[in-house]
Amino acid sequence: MILTVTLNTALDITYRVRTLRPHTSHRVSDVIERPGGKGVNVARVLAALGHAVTVTGFAGGATGRVLHERLADAPGMTDALVPVAGATRRTIAVVDELSGDTTQLNEPGPQISPAEWGDFLDRYEELLPAAAAVALSGSLPPGVPVGAYAGLIRTARALGVPVLLDTSGEPLRRGVAARPDIIKPNADELAELTGSHDPLRATQDARRRGAHAVIASLGAEGLLAATPEGRWHATPPARVHGNPTGAGDSAVAGLLSGLVERLPWPDRLAHAVALSTATVRAPVAGEFDRAAYEELVGRVAVTGDQTAA
Amino acid sequence: MILTVTLNTALDITYRVRTLRPHTSHRVSDVIERPGGKGVNVARVLAALGHAVTVTGFAGGATGRVLHERLADAPGMTDALVPVAGATRRTIAVVDELSGDTTQLNEPGPQISPAEWGDFLDRYEELLPAAAAVALSGSLPPGVPVGAYAGLIRTARALGVPVLLDTSGEPLRRGVAARPDIIKPNADELAELTGSHDPLRATQDARRRGAHAVIASLGAEGLLAATPEGRWHATPPARVHGNPTGAGDSAVAGLLSGLVERLPWPDRLAHAVALSTATVRAPVAGEFDRAAYEELVGRVAVTGDQTAA
Repeated sequence: MILTVTLNTALDITYRVRTLRPHTSHRVSDVIERPGGKGVNVARVLAALGHAVTVTGFAGGATGRVLHERLADAPGMTDALVPVAGATRRTIAVVDELSGDTTQLNEPGPQISPAEWGDFLDRYEELLPAAAAVALSGSLPPGVPVGAYAGLIRTARALGVPVLLDTSGEPLRRGVAARPDIIKPNADELAELTGSHDPLRATQDARRRGAHAVIASLGAEGLLAATPEGRWHATPPARVHGNPTGAGDSAVAGLLSGLVERLPWPDRLAHAVALSTATVRAPVAGEFDRAAYEELVGRVAVTGDQTAA
Repeated sequence: MILTVTLNTALDITYRVRTLRPHTSHRVSDVIERPGGKGVNVARVLAALGHAVTVTGFAGGATGRVLHERLADAPGMTDALVPVAGATRRTIAVVDELSGDTTQLNEPGPQISPAEWGDFLDRYEELLPAAAAVALSGSLPPGVPVGAYAGLIRTARALGVPVLLDTSGEPLRRGVAARPDIIKPNADELAELTGSHDPLRATQDARRRGAHAVIASLGAEGLLAATPEGRWHATPPARVHGNPTGAGDSAVAGLLSGLVERLPWPDRLAHAVALSTATVRAPVAGEFDRAAYEELVGRVAVTGDQTAA
């Protein structure tokens, strides 16, 4: 199975209104609710691709109970969320029916106690031996030490489990120093980590800082990869319009899927770009359009050089 | 005990943000969650005044479970909510920290099935014999017949239980024809019911349509009462600034409290206006400022005529 870690899980709620007008009252015409947080989104895509996935992180309160219920109903996903006293945060996306524009309201995460963090570490160590790969995704909730991801990476590497890190800021900086197998920063995260706004230079720099492979997501320009096996640039066949929510998480799922299937890097990148593009195209945020994915995967252009072995 | 009926209960959530800007992302700095719906608000104020209150209506889903948990923790309030398959709606009030202005997002209520409506009617008839008074508050969820309040009023009157109706539109029109003891429309609801924008004329007209007593809430101008015992106008001592959310529900609680304590009408009206004003003044929407209430109650001006008995 593939293990995804989401320390800052969420209940993602989408509201549809005619047009959001501040300081007025709105009747919500449609409510969609689903488990969220970046690692949960990665797990959903992996499960849709046919992988067995285990989801860990934290869940608490009434919103946490909804997460447990929804995961129990989701085929291919195993719920290994650790209970906490605080309530799992809600995120609310208010979508204007007329323009499709979205206004986001994000609750703060619950405070994690030292004992709860200890419970999580125990669960993580129990789950790792059965994992073919592990993804560490998203921000850290209050109470979790800033070096948390670095520790989780060291534990995974000690057990020989490949580990992908997708976060930002100081947790990314410290995580990279623990030598993860893959990081997947976007352009801003990469620039913040390296100080360089040149993606080519920055991906090389991030490798020097400790990441074995750096896959930078450049939005509509696709993925730029710097790996021990070579450097590539994978680009979607055409610009697509739609909702980019979850496109990065779908790319992570594509990279992990290719990793456990031992695909060569160019194929992994083609799958990741196709999934990401098919997510932007899907009508529901964070879902991917399977037909678009299958049609796109053969049409992603991958250019680059294999390093002489 | 006093029975409050809230067919369209809600989980009221208040978010604090710096300033709501459409089509951007917001970090919510503060989350307050509490059981809501007009009759639940009435019950909260009655319980704070020392009355034993029983809360009925519907509750379902994860949000309904939160309602049950919160009511179990609330002193003086007995939970007699009837389970339904659909989820209790959420209402979200987004308060701008800078201006205090509020943007409201209201989910639709759950669909009530004929069997669930039947369950409610059974529960209502079980609870009524022990009630000193009953309040019917708010809108009707989908699936509940538009004449629902008229039927509930007839049942209460057949058992000799005084009944107050606080709703609007067609449910109010039909309810009035069933001869409730008290209705508490605001100026708009009264105008819609009677076709007259003159509150004095409209309160008299609403009595002719069937209501024994009509207590019109006129915002900052207080309450205008047309009753079998006389006509009065009760006005707060000074204009107050604050959040009017729940002020009408507090007035209803004051009227019911005065009713079960057999106070004369001018005293009931003074309590209702003082509670309503103390609610506008309180920092948290729907709460009342107890010190303000106690100070205000002796300073409400009540003018009018007692009908010769």
